[in-house]
Amino acid sequence: MRVGVADTTFARVNMGGIAIGELRKHASVSIERVTVPGIKDLPVACKKLIEERRCDIVIALGMPGGAEKDRVCAHEASQGLIMAQLMTNTHIVEVFVHEDEAEDDRQLAWLAEQRTREHAVNAVRLILYPKELEKDAGTGQRQGFEDAGPARR
Amino acid sequence: MRVGVADTTFARVNMGGIAIGELRKHASVSIERVTVPGIKDLPVACKKLIEERRCDIVIALGMPGGAEKDRVCAHEASQGLIMAQLMTNTHIVEVFVHEDEAEDDRQLAWLAEQRTREHAVNAVRLILYPKELEKDAGTGQRQGFEDAGPARR
Amino acid sequence: MRVGVADTTFARVNMGGIAIGELRKHASVSIERVTVPGIKDLPVACKKLIEERRCDIVIALGMPGGAEKDRVCAHEASQGLIMAQLMTNTHIVEVFVHEDEAEDDRQLAWLAEQRTREHAVNAVRLILYPKELEKDAGTGQRQGFEDAGPARR
Amino acid sequence: MRVGVADTTFARVNMGGIAIGELRKHASVSIERVTVPGIKDLPVACKKLIEERRCDIVIALGMPGGAEKDRVCAHEASQGLIMAQLMTNTHIVEVFVHEDEAEDDRQLAWLAEQRTREHAVNAVRLILYPKELEKDAGTGQRQGFEDAGPARR
Amino acid sequence: MRVGVADTTFARVNMGGIAIGELRKHASVSIERVTVPGIKDLPVACKKLIEERRCDIVIALGMPGGAEKDRVCAHEASQGLIMAQLMTNTHIVEVFVHEDEAEDDRQLAWLAEQRTREHAVNAVRLILYPKELEKDAGTGQRQGFEDAGPARR
Repeated sequence: MRVGVADTTFARVNMGGIAIGELRKHASVSIERVTVPGIKDLPVACKKLIEERRCDIVIALGMPGGAEKDRVCAHEASQGLIMAQLMTNTHIVEVFVHEDEAEDDRQLAWLAEQRTREHAVNAVRLILYPKELEKDAGTGQRQGFEDAGPARR
Repeated sequence: MRVGVADTTFARVNMGGIAIGELRKHASVSIERVTVPGIKDLPVACKKLIEERRCDIVIALGMPGGAEKDRVCAHEASQGLIMAQLMTNTHIVEVFVHEDEAEDDRQLAWLAEQRTREHAVNAVRLILYPKELEKDAGTGQRQGFEDAGPARR
Repeated sequence: MRVGVADTTFARVNMGGIAIGELRKHASVSIERVTVPGIKDLPVACKKLIEERRCDIVIALGMPGGAEKDRVCAHEASQGLIMAQLMTNTHIVEVFVHEDEAEDDRQLAWLAEQRTREHAVNAVRLILYPKELEKDAGTGQRQGFEDAGPARR
Repeated sequence: MRVGVADTTFARVNMGGIAIGELRKHASVSIERVTVPGIKDLPVACKKLIEERRCDIVIALGMPGGAEKDRVCAHEASQGLIMAQLMTNTHIVEVFVHEDEAEDDRQLAWLAEQRTREHAVNAVRLILYPKELEKDAGTGQRQGFEDAGPARR
Repeated sequence: MRVGVADTTFARVNMGGIAIGELRKHASVSIERVTVPGIKDLPVACKKLIEERRCDIVIALGMPGGAEKDRVCAHEASQGLIMAQLMTNTHIVEVFVHEDEAEDDRQLAWLAEQRTREHAVNAVRLILYPKELEKDAGTGQRQGFEDAGPARR
């Protein structure tokens, strides 16, 4: 199994490094890493990890700013990541932490780390343990902040 | 006939389980299920169900949150689902229940179940009984809440 | 000549039936009809009419609701219809009547019928009489409500 | 050289006719014209001009209305035109005049004519005189209203 | 190595010229330049630089105006640039400077130059020195204005 990790120099937390550490805890996989300037560079970077460096799944990590223009960038990046998946029949787990989700730098760093770790586990499940995800279907899982839980308890 | 069912761990109701139950009531079909973390993972998951697990139709089930960011996610997922259909010439019935459509958790659970059941029937009609859909053309059908009915009565 | 007609059970007027009646008045064509649940199911339905049932042109009929979520659905459906055309080099005439364009059910029914009829004529012109469209270039044609007319009179 | 000209019956000025007149002033090219009902019909019309009528470049002319729904249509048409270009490796010069850019019908007609003429020249430059465009790089050119000019004078 | 540089006549600063100057400082590369009228012409121009003039990477330079319609144009251009990258498995570094990011023409010229230079360096790193980007992962790099820096210091 080969996992791609793509992150950015724009992000204010080394999300790629965190993802790699977490992946190594859960599975014996080889890792291909690439860092690009910003989130709009991620779609093609992920597609190249899949097609040129033969990754079975990719984690795309980014930290959009809080302004309206940044939200538009994140939207464009997300559309591109979905298209890249459709063109390759391969999952790309998007891990975006919006700067305005956190109250200060300290919480931002915590949130980026926590969400990255939880989605690294999701990536492992998607390729190795799909039944674990099925077991959690409809249970209101969240990555980073607290789970919402099921509507019926 | 092979029906794909894709749902999420993010949803707060086991929509995949409900869809499978309803499908079994209406037709003798084999079912392929997959659960992914969130709605943005659905497009490629559905395309893989069609191309790698040979489904004739797929039901894509998700429950977007009520915040602006969640609405953007739902929009991106919907665009991806439409593209996945165009790339495969295969219907994917999108069943999204927005958290803010319901007044409380109880109604949310009811709505998710009701809409899922009604769209499972639509999926069966699309592949097995297309004439039944044609008979209902322009009659203001809704899934979940009450039908709107025809404009001319 | 083979004309595809795709409409929905969501619409509150039998737009597909109206389109077929109008088409038959203007040209001797064979017609392939399909009805799907909602407008987001139209793109792939139209592409299948073109590629699997060999239509030379398709009319895609829908009636989006008046809420913000419905407007987003209509946007996604329109994007999908444009992509389906680009993938097939075949025109798909989109006929959408937004519920909030009309003041009441009576006007809604009138508008849906009128716009459908005028666009059925457009479809005939696109495949059989393109020079008639060229003659009307820049004349401010509208479908349903009154024509805007040319800016210079 | 073969130039495609696509316009609409929705527009309130015969933009296609104006474009053809201007093109003939600047280059000896053959012209392929098509008129479609509205701007959302332009993407596939342009792609067909390129692939079925072998145009080397296309001018896509439209006049979106001033309402919110019209702005969404223009957005969808623009996305389609960009995709059509990417699918064919051929330029399509989009010339859209929004009705709300002008104060009255008289100015609208003037603006539509002026912008069409200036973009017809751009189309000629793109295929025949690319170095003339390079010479104007970063000079704040506008089509229709006055040029903005360079930021440093 | 061959680097493509695509810019516009709409921009109010000769961004293409600046990019070429900066590229030459950092690497011995051949350069292919093209200038198009506006940012919506950039996606196909970049794709042609990649596929017809065999560039290994492209820098796409533009300066969207400050009005709402300009923001929509920039969004469409960005989506097209991402799609062009996915269709070619080649990076296109987007360098857009929005007119409303600057307080006056003087700052606009400064910002356009600064951002162009920093992104030209990014382009060189993407093709020649990817490890330098990886070293800067998560350090809050910005192009033009001051870097944001890492969240944890």
